Amino acid sequence: MDYVYGPGRNHLFVPGPVNIPEPVIRAMNRNNEDYRSPAVPALTKTLLEDVKKIFKTTTGTPFLIPTTGTGAWESALTNTLSPGDRIVSFLIGQFSLLWIDQQQRLGFNVDVVESEWGQGANLDILASKLAADTAHTIKAICIVHNETATGVTNNLAEVRRILDDYSHPALFLVDGVSSICALDFRMDEWGVDVALTGSQKALSLPTGMGIVCAGPKALEATKTAKSVRVFFDWNDYLKFYKLGTYWPYTPSIQLLYGFRAALDLIFEEGLDNVIARHARLGKATRLAVEAWGLKNCTQKEEWFSDTVTAVLVPPYIDSSEIVRRGWKRYNLSLGLGLNKVAGKVFRIGHLGNLNELQLLGCLAGVEMILKDVGYPVKLGSGVAAACAYLQNNTPLIPSRI
Amino acid sequence: MDYVYGPGRNHLFVPGPVNIPEPVIRAMNRNNEDYRSPAVPALTKTLLEDVKKIFKTTTGTPFLIPTTGTGAWESALTNTLSPGDRIVSFLIGQFSLLWIDQQQRLGFNVDVVESEWGQGANLDILASKLAADTAHTIKAICIVHNETATGVTNNLAEVRRILDDYSHPALFLVDGVSSICALDFRMDEWGVDVALTGSQKALSLPTGMGIVCAGPKALEATKTAKSVRVFFDWNDYLKFYKLGTYWPYTPSIQLLYGFRAALDLIFEEGLDNVIARHARLGKATRLAVEAWGLKNCTQKEEWFSDTVTAVLVPPYIDSSEIVRRGWKRYNLSLGLGLNKVAGKVFRIGHLGNLNELQLLGCLAGVEMILKDVGYPVKLGSGVAAACAYLQNNTPLIPSRI
Amino acid sequence: MDYVYGPGRNHLFVPGPVNIPEPVIRAMNRNNEDYRSPAVPALTKTLLEDVKKIFKTTTGTPFLIPTTGTGAWESALTNTLSPGDRIVSFLIGQFSLLWIDQQQRLGFNVDVVESEWGQGANLDILASKLAADTAHTIKAICIVHNETATGVTNNLAEVRRILDDYSHPALFLVDGVSSICALDFRMDEWGVDVALTGSQKALSLPTGMGIVCAGPKALEATKTAKSVRVFFDWNDYLKFYKLGTYWPYTPSIQLLYGFRAALDLIFEEGLDNVIARHARLGKATRLAVEAWGLKNCTQKEEWFSDTVTAVLVPPYIDSSEIVRRGWKRYNLSLGLGLNKVAGKVFRIGHLGNLNELQLLGCLAGVEMILKDVGYPVKLGSGVAAACAYLQNNTPLIPSRI
Amino acid sequence: MDYVYGPGRNHLFVPGPVNIPEPVIRAMNRNNEDYRSPAVPALTKTLLEDVKKIFKTTTGTPFLIPTTGTGAWESALTNTLSPGDRIVSFLIGQFSLLWIDQQQRLGFNVDVVESEWGQGANLDILASKLAADTAHTIKAICIVHNETATGVTNNLAEVRRILDDYSHPALFLVDGVSSICALDFRMDEWGVDVALTGSQKALSLPTGMGIVCAGPKALEATKTAKSVRVFFDWNDYLKFYKLGTYWPYTPSIQLLYGFRAALDLIFEEGLDNVIARHARLGKATRLAVEAWGLKNCTQKEEWFSDTVTAVLVPPYIDSSEIVRRGWKRYNLSLGLGLNKVAGKVFRIGHLGNLNELQLLGCLAGVEMILKDVGYPVKLGSGVAAACAYLQNNTPLIPSRI
Repeated sequence: MDYVYGPGRNHLFVPGPVNIPEPVIRAMNRNNEDYRSPAVPALTKTLLEDVKKIFKTTTGTPFLIPTTGTGAWESALTNTLSPGDRIVSFLIGQFSLLWIDQQQRLGFNVDVVESEWGQGANLDILASKLAADTAHTIKAICIVHNETATGVTNNLAEVRRILDDYSHPALFLVDGVSSICALDFRMDEWGVDVALTGSQKALSLPTGMGIVCAGPKALEATKTAKSVRVFFDWNDYLKFYKLGTYWPYTPSIQLLYGFRAALDLIFEEGLDNVIARHARLGKATRLAVEAWGLKNCTQKEEWFSDTVTAVLVPPYIDSSEIVRRGWKRYNLSLGLGLNKVAGKVFRIGHLGNLNELQLLGCLAGVEMILKDVGYPVKLGSGVAAACAYLQNNTPLIPSRI
Repeated sequence: MDYVYGPGRNHLFVPGPVNIPEPVIRAMNRNNEDYRSPAVPALTKTLLEDVKKIFKTTTGTPFLIPTTGTGAWESALTNTLSPGDRIVSFLIGQFSLLWIDQQQRLGFNVDVVESEWGQGANLDILASKLAADTAHTIKAICIVHNETATGVTNNLAEVRRILDDYSHPALFLVDGVSSICALDFRMDEWGVDVALTGSQKALSLPTGMGIVCAGPKALEATKTAKSVRVFFDWNDYLKFYKLGTYWPYTPSIQLLYGFRAALDLIFEEGLDNVIARHARLGKATRLAVEAWGLKNCTQKEEWFSDTVTAVLVPPYIDSSEIVRRGWKRYNLSLGLGLNKVAGKVFRIGHLGNLNELQLLGCLAGVEMILKDVGYPVKLGSGVAAACAYLQNNTPLIPSRI
Repeated sequence: MDYVYGPGRNHLFVPGPVNIPEPVIRAMNRNNEDYRSPAVPALTKTLLEDVKKIFKTTTGTPFLIPTTGTGAWESALTNTLSPGDRIVSFLIGQFSLLWIDQQQRLGFNVDVVESEWGQGANLDILASKLAADTAHTIKAICIVHNETATGVTNNLAEVRRILDDYSHPALFLVDGVSSICALDFRMDEWGVDVALTGSQKALSLPTGMGIVCAGPKALEATKTAKSVRVFFDWNDYLKFYKLGTYWPYTPSIQLLYGFRAALDLIFEEGLDNVIARHARLGKATRLAVEAWGLKNCTQKEEWFSDTVTAVLVPPYIDSSEIVRRGWKRYNLSLGLGLNKVAGKVFRIGHLGNLNELQLLGCLAGVEMILKDVGYPVKLGSGVAAACAYLQNNTPLIPSRI
Repeated sequence: MDYVYGPGRNHLFVPGPVNIPEPVIRAMNRNNEDYRSPAVPALTKTLLEDVKKIFKTTTGTPFLIPTTGTGAWESALTNTLSPGDRIVSFLIGQFSLLWIDQQQRLGFNVDVVESEWGQGANLDILASKLAADTAHTIKAICIVHNETATGVTNNLAEVRRILDDYSHPALFLVDGVSSICALDFRMDEWGVDVALTGSQKALSLPTGMGIVCAGPKALEATKTAKSVRVFFDWNDYLKFYKLGTYWPYTPSIQLLYGFRAALDLIFEEGLDNVIARHARLGKATRLAVEAWGLKNCTQKEEWFSDTVTAVLVPPYIDSSEIVRRGWKRYNLSLGLGLNKVAGKVFRIGHLGNLNELQLLGCLAGVEMILKDVGYPVKLGSGVAAACAYLQNNTPLIPSRI
């Protein structure tokens, strides 16, 4: 059974959940298993080892939690902080907004640093706050690496530099939901204390696994963190890690095997090649947007995101109509503009297991939709611009040389 | 890739995760989808309507939460109660123990009513506590319908009767993890305020969906419940229910379609037939155990569980060896004895999408394992007893008459 | 395991095997079944009824043979003809050539009417042969509806008209491998006596089922046809049709369920809409080719094929290199030039379960490849031309209005 | 969609098509691919190499033909023989009968050596025929290794011995449909010239691939064989083997990947272990039959088949009713009695990817059915007998030790 079936493939270009590669779909196509048999811990062990490579950490401890990104956020906060703790948090779009909302509801004292949507986190304000905080009342910095609503990538290396400049001990908590395994992310090098992502993003799995990685300082923080937590309590995991059975409660067997397959694909392609592919597709998308005469919601090049592009439409067009029309006429799924940018932007997700021709089909679709809704686009212009770049920059598929 | 593959099918008889029927595996064999398209709300709407039939409620509000049973517990508690609230909770085995542990860690004042493992909840003590509680300090009664560790089914109708006898307003919170959709469960008739289960149990899906149903009194209680909650907050769901988009965060597309298929199968068979089938398989299992000369961990017939049978082994046998051997020699997955009954019982799960011949294969396997480990079983005896019952009581498959 | 895996989807644009829609992949994702149970005949009955709609026949008898198109050819010939029988057969490309080769090896007296590759069947010669054949020595006319090697569609209505003009009783045998269910095909109206296709073409299934439909005159011919046949003997099928068990030997359970799903999708879309979609995609492809400044191998518009376009490349380019490069760099699978047109044409298959954006992704890929191999294509030009047409002519997806 | 769905797994115990292991189902869960890309020949090459191990040949040439067993028969005959050629063929049951029917219809002069159904091939008669045939008019000996209708395994080593005794040059053609990869089969050692099987038998795949292996003498015979053949012509394959593209027409991509997975499983288990497992399950089945007080259709132990057991029922019982009832009440698929033994035997297939507990579930089911239809079976008796044997003889699963 399918709801509202259309002929041909659905072109899935929302910034998550993203396309699942066929080998991963296959790996998950299976019956349940007893998770207490020796097989599941053996499998889990490989996953816990290998996921660290994706986060570029050797000192971090990963947790594969049966939850979504929202749950992963909660896990990061409640395991390391106590109610009332002061957090500096950057509001730059809908997802940072939702995280801040969660931080507030969990009882933290959130010091919100707001930017205009389309801009990155204001790190000057961070610097001044840290400078002023000689008493170290700031317990954590919370930042999304990539704001999925506006297509803005924050400079995490710079955050670390500022923290170091002031020798500030605040925990550095990073939402890497739409970045990890797609953008350059370096947990250890950047001194990130907790980083997290969700299975349905760049890892190209179904939703259902929140992947959280905690550094040594974060693990230490759990000992004093007074936030109430049970389901999300890392200590329950750590207890079972020691026992070698790994799971405090039942994991999804299917997601474990799917994760194994997803990691295998990533390592086969090479993580750096995966990141380069995202850079290539991101660049191609931006060139198309420019060729259409439209503006990127992201205001400066330094913040351009290689996983999602939010495209501003002229005021006489409702961007929701673009999304609706894509789905109704071309079997194309684009991302809506959310909250402040609702009606003003539509989003092209270009993350996960995706290649050049998939993206070009999407871009051609967007051109037709723009025409449909009355924008005077020159058909073929965006595709031409993207092709010109891609034709020069796409490597041969290594396994096929 | 499979870890430690053996020829032929794995015989999965742990009391969860259970066997997934082929049509459900098929339904989940799919790419991701945009959950903000009109298709996913349309699908979700049918699920929310139909899941109520499984709980036998018309007044309840269901929540399909991307979590496990443990998360569903947390959701039930934190949405309806405040830290410090007095709860009467029954400790009768490992899973009620874990729930009580959670209740304590979440800051409730848990009034534990303990029974010997193998016995049901002591409802006389409940009665006396309610009688004494004229001030209504007891805010909730927490009880597992079916204790998966010992194969004990509690009498929920009786709990309701006692609550009514004392006109006590305590919330009635039920863990139906290994009962709902397998045992007779009547949310409305029994005045259950919150009931919950997990997708990987009688619904025969993968792990990953906690299914919680809240009655009107429970929803009312959310307004005053002070427990901190964000990921598990029902209000976030209710907000999106009103919007008609249903999801506060990304659901698993695969589980939604799988759930649709699972419900379709259940309704095709008929919920009452599903329950009767569980009763039949439970009875057959107990007859086999008796024929082997072994004792049921469940001490009285009134508590016999139709979803799991915990079998006591003689003191000279380590029940873990039975489980190990089943897996190593016969590709049979049995349940271990947990905690207090570790080494003393092994468990046969007989819940979910299962039929007579699957169970008989398992029972034959158990006989061989018993022989393997030195128990003087008469080979064929348990199967004979089960067959005698099943041959008289198994109906024709309705679709094939 | 995949051989030579590349990131993202494979873009499959060979003219068969074609893309299988997800619902069909799902339907085939199953264990074997006893084909002698009541279920399989019940399923088969629906298939045999419904496949006739695809052939637009009410009087034909369909055979679902576990074989390929080559086997379906053999079935058509050996059931209706005797060794030495005179056949008029049209050689217009590689597949008609292979069929003629088969006809000769099966011992028929083949009167070959050859056209230049890129032209359609020479029906004037047919007319003159029929005119001359007052003795009715010609027993059959064999023609491919759509020559997959050159992208040439023959005019079957005209063949019938000529046969009727001369009141010639020759059997009219049609290879509809790359036409049926994609191009307008009317078995009854055009008086086709045997028509056939393969599962991996427009029906969008895996290879493995030859679908042959025999009209009354063809069935009558079986009585005198002396060609040796056993595996392909229709009478073995007819015998089991009468018994209601349908299968003289074991069918592929998976293909039967897949076929059911494929037919359901086709009827949901509407056969006429399916054909219109092929016309739309065919036209868009030809517009792109024109915009690139390249020539269609098909020499006249009347023969243009809506299922495959064979594109002529300039003499300084080896078309095989285009195909190789597509696969190695862009994960795009194009069709090679075969035999006489090897190195001179590459082919874009646009048949089966396919939509506009898939095609546009392919066209963009072809543009980049053309550039890669040194052809001075204007990037974006073909996509622009195709988009201009598609943006005007693509209907809304009916289920989503 | 499923026709006549029943709860729980279908217990598939017909002697083909048999249960497909989950890893094989997974491997086939895929889109089509261009079979002319470098990937498919690379995959095919491994299959052609590895399938020889299954046949135990180093000198044979395998052909993977998109057809069924019936087609594989036709391929074996038409490639090596000429119409009118004298064949000695053994009629011992329905499948040998069907093959003989095919031989006659293909125009061979079939010298039928008939045995009572339930007996093996009469090799004394073979000896006398060979002795008498000093002129070598006998061109081929055709024999089924295992007659699926009666559960009779012929002694192929003895056939070879007799041929050698008389230094007779007749080709030795073997139907190994229900034997190869389950029974001990040695193509080279026994001097078998053509051996064949079908994918849906012991290889545990879907139907659709006829696997034929031709020895050097058989390949030599193709040069003079005058039987008309095109689809089944080995030379077409050999031509493409030389080209390194392997396929004269489109193969099923799904079956190729499935075959790879099936071979991998077989080699992981070890072919000798696979054969030993079949011997074990066959023996257990026969012990159960004996315990029920029923007779094996196979008249002597030397012919007992380890892949299928045909069980004779008392005259007052219609064996078809046993099969019907199994399907209608217990979701058990047993084999019907065919032709001469219709109504008199039912068949238990125990071949392919199957283990002890699956078989025991089936045997328990048969006991209940026997009771259902009025046979005074002692419930549990067959299972007890089988268990007694299996408990002593089942090895640990190697990967789990």
